[in-house]
Amino acid sequence: MSEAYVHGYHPRENERLQDQAGTLVDLLHSDTSYPSGSAVLEAGCGVGAQTVTLGQRSPRARFTSVDVCADSLAEAKRATDAAGLTNVQFRQADIFALPFSPESFDHVFVCFVLEHLSRPAEALAILRGLLRPGGTMTVIEGDHGSTYFHPDSSAARMAIQCQVELQRLAGGNALIGRQLYPLMVEAGLETVRVSPRMVYVDSSKPGLVDGFTRKTFTAMIEGVRESAIAAGIIDPDAFDAGVRDLHRTAEKDGVFCYTFFKGVGEKHRGQH
Amino acid sequence: MSEAYVHGYHPRENERLQDQAGTLVDLLHSDTSYPSGSAVLEAGCGVGAQTVTLGQRSPRARFTSVDVCADSLAEAKRATDAAGLTNVQFRQADIFALPFSPESFDHVFVCFVLEHLSRPAEALAILRGLLRPGGTMTVIEGDHGSTYFHPDSSAARMAIQCQVELQRLAGGNALIGRQLYPLMVEAGLETVRVSPRMVYVDSSKPGLVDGFTRKTFTAMIEGVRESAIAAGIIDPDAFDAGVRDLHRTAEKDGVFCYTFFKGVGEKHRGQH
Repeated sequence: MSEAYVHGYHPRENERLQDQAGTLVDLLHSDTSYPSGSAVLEAGCGVGAQTVTLGQRSPRARFTSVDVCADSLAEAKRATDAAGLTNVQFRQADIFALPFSPESFDHVFVCFVLEHLSRPAEALAILRGLLRPGGTMTVIEGDHGSTYFHPDSSAARMAIQCQVELQRLAGGNALIGRQLYPLMVEAGLETVRVSPRMVYVDSSKPGLVDGFTRKTFTAMIEGVRESAIAAGIIDPDAFDAGVRDLHRTAEKDGVFCYTFFKGVGEKHRGQH
Repeated sequence: MSEAYVHGYHPRENERLQDQAGTLVDLLHSDTSYPSGSAVLEAGCGVGAQTVTLGQRSPRARFTSVDVCADSLAEAKRATDAAGLTNVQFRQADIFALPFSPESFDHVFVCFVLEHLSRPAEALAILRGLLRPGGTMTVIEGDHGSTYFHPDSSAARMAIQCQVELQRLAGGNALIGRQLYPLMVEAGLETVRVSPRMVYVDSSKPGLVDGFTRKTFTAMIEGVRESAIAAGIIDPDAFDAGVRDLHRTAEKDGVFCYTFFKGVGEKHRGQH
């Protein structure tokens, strides 16, 4: 499921999604860049899908990208090497046991990570401790409860709910996007500003119909089929009906909506 | 219910909402203005909530604002008079039997109307017939299915569903926002572009917490209490629990999301 999820929201991993990757990357990252010389921690870099974008957009910042999984880190290293980046170093570590001194980063970046954690506010508070006063923290998450579409379909909603339920059973929260503001405030960040980044898809945007509705979101839901059936959350026929109805929203008169959330907060000077 | 709805999304009617009215008006209308001398039909003007904005933003366009209800028109007239507008005339008529010649308007504007109609595509096709080739049609609708919030609450979702169900029983569709693109295409409009206008509210925006979450959306849902109970859709305790949970989303750690949709289409030259 985690794999499926990763594939879902890391469009650069999937060659077929190159066309729309630019659109989504812009939607999520166009307003993030770090100054020359600044030290940036990317917490939970996974296979490096965001790392490449970060490194390219801030070529003179120095990134330290951390993940708990060695295999993911190896893939992330290959991705940044392939992109010719020299401003990223990788470290294997758990987000709850990071090997860094307090206040050793100018900025922290966290994308598609909190959804997997059972204690997201605690993780943010730990990361805040690594920020120098005056530094910023940027957090990006999706929210599966932000999904709606035309034609509407209770079967499709049930299939999506399988992913939400599996993520919950795994200790995560697939509806975390809407919670960014209170989570960041609870973690002690200040001047928190959250903005929604809505992906609206109708057939005037064929790149997004194929790239987002079909090959990102619906493919992600299809990816949890076996897990959802094995967990007894749904029966095969009901799941397949839901997936068919998700594909139906990619037809000529269909519409698909999904929203990511991006939050930026500061650690004020004089705060520790 | 219709009353409650009208009050819900026409913030200028409610003096207490003046603070956030500007925000919502900008969100929905800032990209609409009509050239000097152009003839614009506002179909379904109600009590004139949008009429005042339209007339002010395009002071040299000539508006014809139509509604089926004489009382609403009288109120709309008072509103435009109070605003000192002289570029609006009112006509009482049914949207399915409009007293205008084909191709007699340069532009058509329709806001919060389709949701009330059982044949929205037919209404748009009729309005398209009144457009001169080269003219544009602008349509704005909400979508109650776009509502989600933190803390999430099935009780709150059920209370909202009462409004959706009542609107359906009355022949309308409270989820119509997401359908604007296919409806406008079906009506024969071309170069249709739909954009979502999302209202994102957290406690960093106290004007919207009070003005939108509490006094617009939650007040609208509260307004259907008696109708929903009378229709047997919900029992009083369940409804009241839902409304309490909607108010809960307006507290310090709460978040509220709602999306309007705005579509603009053209009647191409050479088309009739």
